[in-house]
Amino acid sequence: MRILSGIQPSGTIHIGNYFGMIKKMVESQNDGELFAFIASYHALTSVKDKEFLERNIFEAAVNFLALGMDPEKSTFWVQHDVKEVLELYWLLSNHTSMGLLERAHSYKDKTTRGIQANHGLFSYPVLMAADILLFDSNIVPVGKDQIQHVEMTRDIATSFNHTYGDILVLPESKVDENVATVPGTDGAKMSKSYNNTIDMFGPAKTIKKQVMGIVTDSKELNEAKEWENCNIYTLSKLFMKEDELASLRQRYATPGEGYGHFKMTLLDKINEHFEPYAQKREHLLNNPKEVKDILAFGASKAKKIAAAKMEIIRDAVGLI
Amino acid sequence: MRILSGIQPSGTIHIGNYFGMIKKMVESQNDGELFAFIASYHALTSVKDKEFLERNIFEAAVNFLALGMDPEKSTFWVQHDVKEVLELYWLLSNHTSMGLLERAHSYKDKTTRGIQANHGLFSYPVLMAADILLFDSNIVPVGKDQIQHVEMTRDIATSFNHTYGDILVLPESKVDENVATVPGTDGAKMSKSYNNTIDMFGPAKTIKKQVMGIVTDSKELNEAKEWENCNIYTLSKLFMKEDELASLRQRYATPGEGYGHFKMTLLDKINEHFEPYAQKREHLLNNPKEVKDILAFGASKAKKIAAAKMEIIRDAVGLI
Repeated sequence: MRILSGIQPSGTIHIGNYFGMIKKMVESQNDGELFAFIASYHALTSVKDKEFLERNIFEAAVNFLALGMDPEKSTFWVQHDVKEVLELYWLLSNHTSMGLLERAHSYKDKTTRGIQANHGLFSYPVLMAADILLFDSNIVPVGKDQIQHVEMTRDIATSFNHTYGDILVLPESKVDENVATVPGTDGAKMSKSYNNTIDMFGPAKTIKKQVMGIVTDSKELNEAKEWENCNIYTLSKLFMKEDELASLRQRYATPGEGYGHFKMTLLDKINEHFEPYAQKREHLLNNPKEVKDILAFGASKAKKIAAAKMEIIRDAVGLI
Repeated sequence: MRILSGIQPSGTIHIGNYFGMIKKMVESQNDGELFAFIASYHALTSVKDKEFLERNIFEAAVNFLALGMDPEKSTFWVQHDVKEVLELYWLLSNHTSMGLLERAHSYKDKTTRGIQANHGLFSYPVLMAADILLFDSNIVPVGKDQIQHVEMTRDIATSFNHTYGDILVLPESKVDENVATVPGTDGAKMSKSYNNTIDMFGPAKTIKKQVMGIVTDSKELNEAKEWENCNIYTLSKLFMKEDELASLRQRYATPGEGYGHFKMTLLDKINEHFEPYAQKREHLLNNPKEVKDILAFGASKAKKIAAAKMEIIRDAVGLI
C-alpha cells in the first residue's frame, strides 16, 4: 500500500504542525510505503522570493528528517527534482473539465480572502492529481479541507482511464478523525496566521516567551484553579502521561502556585520532548551536504518509479 | 534574430496550408535562426487518439522536411522531446492572472463553438508563452487570430521579469499582411473544416477529384468566360507566372474551351509544382528511421538551449 504525503515548505514549524500532521506522517512509515515530497512547485503559487523558498525547502527537509522521516524506508524527495510530474500534469489537464476546477473550494476561499488569482493557484488541484497519480498512490492522508482535492484526482483519473484504458490508480483520501486539535497560546487553533504558535525548534528564549504568553484566566496564587478549558492544561496533555497529568490537576486544585509555575512545567516537558529531535536537527543544519545527498537519493528512488510510470502513460497517449 | 514557429500536427496538408503558412516558414530560414517545433503537447488539448497523434506527428515532420525545412540550418524538433517547456509553463502559470486567460479570444471562440472546455485548452496560452520564452524568441510569425497570444506572452514575461529581474526576452508578433488568401474549391477560405481543400500530397486521384470539383459558373464551351472572381483562375495565380496567366486569360476570353480544360491546366501546374517535394516526401515516408534521427538531432539542439535557459530561470526562482 502506497501512502502519498506532500509537505509545504512553509518555514518555522510549531507544535500544532507536529501533532496535527508531522507525527502522523512519520508514524505512517509503519503502515505502508510512504512517498513524501516537499512541494516546491506548489509553493511557487504564493512564494516569489528565491532565498525564502530555498531556505524553506532546506528547513523542511531538515525538520522532517530530524523528526523521523526515514529516507531508506520511505521515499523522500523535493518535488522539482522529479520533473515527470509536470508532464503528467499537462496530460491530466486535458482530462480536467473547467467546471471541476471552478468548483474547488480552496481556490474560491483563497480568492475570497483577497489572494491574487493566478493560474498556478487555479490549476493547483491538477498538479496535486499528478503528484498522487504518478506514484500509483493508494492512500492520501489529508485534512478535511483537502478531501475535495482527492475526489477531483479520482474524477480526473477516471476520465483519463476512460480514454486510454486502466492506467491510473484511483486513490483514497484518509482523514484522521482522531487527530489532536492543538490550541494556540490564545486558545484558538494554533496557526502561524493567528500569531499564537509555540515553535518546535525556535531559540529557547522564543519558545519560553511563547509558553509564558499562554492566555489564562486571572486567578491569583492563593486561589484554587480549574484545569478544564485551561490552555496550559490542554497543551500539557500533548506532552504528559496520565500520572503526570493527575499530579498537574492536583496542583491546579491546590492554592499556592500560579499559572507561571504550570507554564514552566509545560515548557520543561516541551523541551524534553523535542530535545532528541533538536539535536539531530542541529546536526543536519550544520551538514547541508548530508541533507542534499539524502534528498538526491530520495529523488533517484522517486524518479525511477515516475519514469517507469510515465513510459506507460506516454505510450498510451501517443507521445513516443 | 530568433524566429519561433509552432506546427500543429493536423494530418493531411492542403495548398491553403502551404501558401498560407508553410512556404513562409521555410523561407524564414533565410531571415534569421528558425526554431520550429511540432506542437504535440498542444495537440493533446483536442486529440485523444494515440495512433492518430503518432501518425500526425510523423507526417508533419515528413511534410515540413520535404517542403524545405533544413534541420542543419534551423532547429526542428517535436515539442515533447524538450520537456523543459513544461517546467517553464508551470513557473509562468504563477505569473499569469486568471483575468488574462479568461479574456483569450481563442478559448472563448472554441467553447462557444461547443468544444468541451478542458483545462488544457484554457491554459494553452501559458504553454504557448513557455514555447516562445524558453528559446529567447524575438519574432513569432502568426495569423491575426494569434496576435493576442503573443501579447499575453509579453504580459506574462513582463510580470515574471518584474519579480525576478530581466530574464525573459519579450517577443514581437509578425503578421504577414501579404499572405495569400487561398480560396477553397467552393470559393470560401480553404479549410479542412469546410471540406473544400485541394491536398498537396494526396493520391493523384484525390487531387484530381478535388480540382475537378472547383465551383464555377455554368457558362458553356462556346461562350466567352470571365476570369475575374473565377476560383480556377484565383488558384492558378498561385502556380503560374504572369505570362502563363496572360495566356490563361486569353483562353477564358476565347469561346471553345470549358472550365474542365482550365481545371486540367491547373491540375498539371499543381502536380508540377509539388512534384519535387512529393519525391522527397516519399523517400522520407519510406525511411522513418531517417526522420526519427533528424528529429532527435533537432531535439538535442533545442534541448541544449532550453536546458541552459532553464538553469538561469530555476536559479532565479529558487528551484536549485
